[in-house]
Amino acid sequence: MTLTGHSLIAGQPLVGDGKTTFAFNPATNEQLHPAYSLITEEQLTTATSAAAAAYPSFSTLDPETHAAFLDAIADNIEAIGEELIIRAGQETGLPAARLQGERARTTGQLRLFANVVRQGDFRGVRIDPALPDRAPLPRADIRQRQIPLGPVAVFGASNFPLAFSTAGGDTASALAAGCPVVFKAHNAHPGTGELVGRAVVKAVKDFRLHPGVFSLVYGPGASIGQALVADPNIKAVGFTGSQAAGIALMRTAASRPEPIPVYAEMSSLNPVFVFEGALNGSAEDIDALATQYVTAVTGSSGQLCTSPGLLFAPAGEAGDRLAAAVGRAVSACAGQTMLTEGIAGSWNAGAAALGSADGVTVVGKGTTGPTENAPAPTIFGTPVRDFVSNHVLHQEIFGAASLVIRYSSTADLIEAVNRLEGQLTATLQLTEADYPTAAPLIPALEQKVGRIIVNGWPTGVEGGHAMVHGGPFPATSDSRTTSVGTLAISRFLRPVAYQNLPPELLPAPLQDDNPWHLNRRINGEQQLATTYV
Amino acid sequence: MTLTGHSLIAGQPLVGDGKTTFAFNPATNEQLHPAYSLITEEQLTTATSAAAAAYPSFSTLDPETHAAFLDAIADNIEAIGEELIIRAGQETGLPAARLQGERARTTGQLRLFANVVRQGDFRGVRIDPALPDRAPLPRADIRQRQIPLGPVAVFGASNFPLAFSTAGGDTASALAAGCPVVFKAHNAHPGTGELVGRAVVKAVKDFRLHPGVFSLVYGPGASIGQALVADPNIKAVGFTGSQAAGIALMRTAASRPEPIPVYAEMSSLNPVFVFEGALNGSAEDIDALATQYVTAVTGSSGQLCTSPGLLFAPAGEAGDRLAAAVGRAVSACAGQTMLTEGIAGSWNAGAAALGSADGVTVVGKGTTGPTENAPAPTIFGTPVRDFVSNHVLHQEIFGAASLVIRYSSTADLIEAVNRLEGQLTATLQLTEADYPTAAPLIPALEQKVGRIIVNGWPTGVEGGHAMVHGGPFPATSDSRTTSVGTLAISRFLRPVAYQNLPPELLPAPLQDDNPWHLNRRINGEQQLATTYV
Repeated sequence: MTLTGHSLIAGQPLVGDGKTTFAFNPATNEQLHPAYSLITEEQLTTATSAAAAAYPSFSTLDPETHAAFLDAIADNIEAIGEELIIRAGQETGLPAARLQGERARTTGQLRLFANVVRQGDFRGVRIDPALPDRAPLPRADIRQRQIPLGPVAVFGASNFPLAFSTAGGDTASALAAGCPVVFKAHNAHPGTGELVGRAVVKAVKDFRLHPGVFSLVYGPGASIGQALVADPNIKAVGFTGSQAAGIALMRTAASRPEPIPVYAEMSSLNPVFVFEGALNGSAEDIDALATQYVTAVTGSSGQLCTSPGLLFAPAGEAGDRLAAAVGRAVSACAGQTMLTEGIAGSWNAGAAALGSADGVTVVGKGTTGPTENAPAPTIFGTPVRDFVSNHVLHQEIFGAASLVIRYSSTADLIEAVNRLEGQLTATLQLTEADYPTAAPLIPALEQKVGRIIVNGWPTGVEGGHAMVHGGPFPATSDSRTTSVGTLAISRFLRPVAYQNLPPELLPAPLQDDNPWHLNRRINGEQQLATTYV
Repeated sequence: MTLTGHSLIAGQPLVGDGKTTFAFNPATNEQLHPAYSLITEEQLTTATSAAAAAYPSFSTLDPETHAAFLDAIADNIEAIGEELIIRAGQETGLPAARLQGERARTTGQLRLFANVVRQGDFRGVRIDPALPDRAPLPRADIRQRQIPLGPVAVFGASNFPLAFSTAGGDTASALAAGCPVVFKAHNAHPGTGELVGRAVVKAVKDFRLHPGVFSLVYGPGASIGQALVADPNIKAVGFTGSQAAGIALMRTAASRPEPIPVYAEMSSLNPVFVFEGALNGSAEDIDALATQYVTAVTGSSGQLCTSPGLLFAPAGEAGDRLAAAVGRAVSACAGQTMLTEGIAGSWNAGAAALGSADGVTVVGKGTTGPTENAPAPTIFGTPVRDFVSNHVLHQEIFGAASLVIRYSSTADLIEAVNRLEGQLTATLQLTEADYPTAAPLIPALEQKVGRIIVNGWPTGVEGGHAMVHGGPFPATSDSRTTSVGTLAISRFLRPVAYQNLPPELLPAPLQDDNPWHLNRRINGEQQLATTYV
């Protein structure tokens, strides 16, 4: 496919009236063609108006067509083939194997949500039948379902050009809910965005849906993003990115005449807690633990939302051995190209600030990579006292850096956890002997994180039904939900009740004969449909 | 019980260090004893700290104790007896029958939530079992549950001294979720608040719960409310009241270092749409419809969240007959005491402004009541053109006033609906012949309201499983939920995932042997527990 450099507004290419921009290959700092024309705020309203116009038909699509549409997007993305992996690699510096995995995750998410649409529980059907003879007052027939909120603005993430971008988790869950999407492409990977955007548009056309169901816009980063969130036709926002940008969107959304929800996934230190028992094995076991940790820190150049930024290791000899092993492991690592020159610059500044903080030492440092923007992975160390008292040590450094914190007691750990801001994840490395020590940490962690992992690593977020990729502020803007996994669909729904409606006026999901074969809550009790469509 | 005039902080009476205030009997404008001492912001932190301290034990209470605690609150409220009805009547001017009904609703809600706690679906258990042999990567065991957000601030409503106040729907759903509550009493009915607050405190003591589970504070309205919402120990807010106050709380909550959700139920016009077929009956039928409408407008002096403020009637002869019947019905109504002198004053100002707006006439006016603060119920009229073009006619007048709008076509109705702000309810009066005309209105209404009623009235909100008492802004601050009915519990919960936790560290609701007998979603499929506790 020849890249055009145009936005895709309701199925039509649109040449932006603003400036143009180019992607850059971060491995070489070379400009990539074509030029992408940026739209203006006036042009943006074409997309948001089309999304609003698409809502009535798209929000009431029959489940089978709706699900098949999501499957078709996945098929169309796969059909792009190697071109997608190559372009995404050029634009992000990410290796092909990582991008192939990310593509599989992206199409897997779309197909997972297709099955969610077929299964239908997200429609939240509740029926309280009439009780005409109830005393002192009869009860009317009351039925409830969840309906889609309306057009959703989705922002592409720098660090996941596929899985958290054009047809990523936010788009997939919004479309599954029945919400049209206006997608703001990330200017660091516009070509990847265009390729995937055309795959989505093809599915919209093939299924003869209203073209406003999906638009992809290129615009000047902050200003068009703010305009998009302020647009009265937009009813919710999905975002993955920096805390500063996410908070700016939250403020805009809250100060609209009609405030709307913002689901921003922003930053996380993803602490790992190593207990004594986990260090009671052989030197090889400790080396293996250290290598796994360093792999989680340095994979994708540390640019994952769930890369561990903190490792709590016990004081004393066993902890010393772990720290030494971590130092050796990271020393053997070469830097990998970061996503952009700007991100590499921020990493350098953050690592320099952490390295010069009181009480912070260098546990180990790798080597600078052979490409541009590939700084040397570095792991720092500090005692828990310094961590607890110095908020500078709590700053996320996006990239391959982490801080080993030495603690002396469970009380130390609980105090440290209580000082943490909200996080996406927390990980415990332990053995059975550590259960009594670790148990009191779990309630404290529940207050701070969205996911607790034992003897694994937080990276590699599984997209399933039970996953939570979320957590208290500032990990996300809204701890009541997740941006990965099927519960993500609930972000884009709201309940409506129907009292005493005749069958002729009831929406299909609420009709007595249950034409969509939905599980339903009748008088408060969950009842299963005997068959699914 | 002798009223003390003190706040109840974590089970202990506290004399406020601020000014004192008295309740007034709005029927006589006479002061009611005792004086209530108002707390300061410093004193408030005692309550919020105690709530935070109560969270660990209360949030993990076993379901049977938890449910029995809610039942006990209901029992204790009933045990107060007539004293509660008398004091509430003195403080609000509401008649005894209404207050008895409201008490039954309050205790009914508590017992409903007790059963929700026993049933347990709100815990949202999802289990994706490990797939160790999956290729290319194994899947870890991942489990999800909903946990309580933390201490909740609840504000008493002026118009429901029982059902939306001390132990009303917000308190009941927050306590059911496992969240401690800090309740800010409404200064118009402090004695009612104290009586109910002591009933809650008795249950806390009898069940030997942490005393911080519930506190009731009296404070200077706006300032202590803002301080409560800004308090870092508070994690969510429940509010029913004016749009100005609700929006002020929303802004405070959004600008905290850690923003928190606000569930504010604020204002609603509750439009009623009368179709031609509903007027094809006899004169008696039309009179009956008019009387029902006027009863809904004037009941509780029109001070219900769901009192209908708009009635769309067709132009032409049938609509003329309805308007005339409405005029006759309201003319026969005497004013009833409003909740406070201030509310009666606002009603007078609002009714005067509406009456003097261009194109607005008086359809009918009742008589001033024999007590103080009992203005004459008034129903105004206007053509749909004026309604659509003049936003002044969209202002809620809290009290016994309503506006009859004459329309000519379904297009008129859809245009009017599209101009409406968010509402709690919309009501259709129709017959089978009207279904084709009414059907296109329903999708438009779904975008504007939380509940659609056919051939009933919006007042008398049923507290069940399917009810939605909510709607788009500014009806509420958050359309994704409801403040009445069992779904209200979801406002105070957030998901947490547990990856690869050993059975010894898993919370009870997530354990394989399902000790709490919960319905669970396994690999995305809902599975019913065979028995409930």
